[in-house]
Amino acid sequence: MPTQGAEAFYEFLRTQRAVRRLRPDPIPDEVLARILDATRHAPSGGNRQGWRMVLVTEPTKKARLGELYTPSWEAYRAQYGNIDGLSHEDAARMVRVLDSGSYMAAHMHEYPLVAVVCFNPKHLAVTDAGQDRVSVVGGGSIYPAVQNFMLACRVEGLGCVLTTLLCEHEQEVKALLSIPEDWYTAAAIPVGYPVGKGYGPVSRLPVDKLFFENVWENPV
Amino acid sequence: MPTQGAEAFYEFLRTQRAVRRLRPDPIPDEVLARILDATRHAPSGGNRQGWRMVLVTEPTKKARLGELYTPSWEAYRAQYGNIDGLSHEDAARMVRVLDSGSYMAAHMHEYPLVAVVCFNPKHLAVTDAGQDRVSVVGGGSIYPAVQNFMLACRVEGLGCVLTTLLCEHEQEVKALLSIPEDWYTAAAIPVGYPVGKGYGPVSRLPVDKLFFENVWENPV
Repeated sequence: MPTQGAEAFYEFLRTQRAVRRLRPDPIPDEVLARILDATRHAPSGGNRQGWRMVLVTEPTKKARLGELYTPSWEAYRAQYGNIDGLSHEDAARMVRVLDSGSYMAAHMHEYPLVAVVCFNPKHLAVTDAGQDRVSVVGGGSIYPAVQNFMLACRVEGLGCVLTTLLCEHEQEVKALLSIPEDWYTAAAIPVGYPVGKGYGPVSRLPVDKLFFENVWENPV
Repeated sequence: MPTQGAEAFYEFLRTQRAVRRLRPDPIPDEVLARILDATRHAPSGGNRQGWRMVLVTEPTKKARLGELYTPSWEAYRAQYGNIDGLSHEDAARMVRVLDSGSYMAAHMHEYPLVAVVCFNPKHLAVTDAGQDRVSVVGGGSIYPAVQNFMLACRVEGLGCVLTTLLCEHEQEVKALLSIPEDWYTAAAIPVGYPVGKGYGPVSRLPVDKLFFENVWENPV
């Protein structure tokens, strides 16, 4: 491990997990300043930086975001929360995750910060727009910044989670935050100090299921 | 700065820039192993991990990727490479970036690694699919892993750059790498040790142009 700080860096990435049980305690200005500076350095296509973040701290606005989020969350839980056929362990894990999602919906107004991520399609080179499948490439100029933001939160001991259900209520969110006509929403990230331990080991697929060498299903 | 390693972490993020002039020297296995492990820990919607990477090292396959990339790059350069009306400094910077892009197109076959990022829409919850604008949310489950990959490259002293022009040749790339019908391409990331210094300061918008508090254009 040649580079100084590399070991800590890898440990930060290995322990970045979704944290939804957050305390209302405020985020100190100097902590937030470091997170925003890390975020702004993220790469984007043609360095166009076609993303912005609205940092929502005002209680009535956070409450409104929670109101909009709740029905989408309940529908998501009803659709994806089926634990039939899962092992006891997997079912227990699923219920824990779902309960933390319900906790978030109920407590969003108490979190110190909800960052609403915006983008402008005019600043994105969407090279897969002509394909006969869902387009994702625009996200390549948005979510690297989002990941920098979340990693910096983790480094600062702040919990956070990437949520996209509020995109189902884009017009209401745009009205609430005065987001202009030609800007849209890509994510919302609730942030706060964890109620519990917060970060720790995560469950992910092993390398040989995710990475292939030269041809598909030829594991690295 | 409370956490150990935080200072180095922020320095890594601040100096992550696109590096397109890369040497053919191979990437040691233990270096690649650390990068892949960092990548696999990235978050994704519902922890579904609907992404894969094909690590292309075979010379004929890299050469074919370069062949496919070149006409798209030339078209991009012709469309976006206009330096009329730019200041002397901005024009010089633009020409440097464009020349490094042309270098990449001409040398892709010599780079030790081109990582082709794939995704399966069935594993993505695309909450903005119903909106009357380009969809980006699927990328929220792909590009955090891409950013982990690129940051880990930077930590290891490897240059790399996120490219999406090969998505214009998705069918050819899928055939070349035996990518199944229901998986698609989101990016290609050439990787190698830099010819020059590689990393360093980047030019980005200041915090008050990117982050607003509670309402749009109310700078943090």
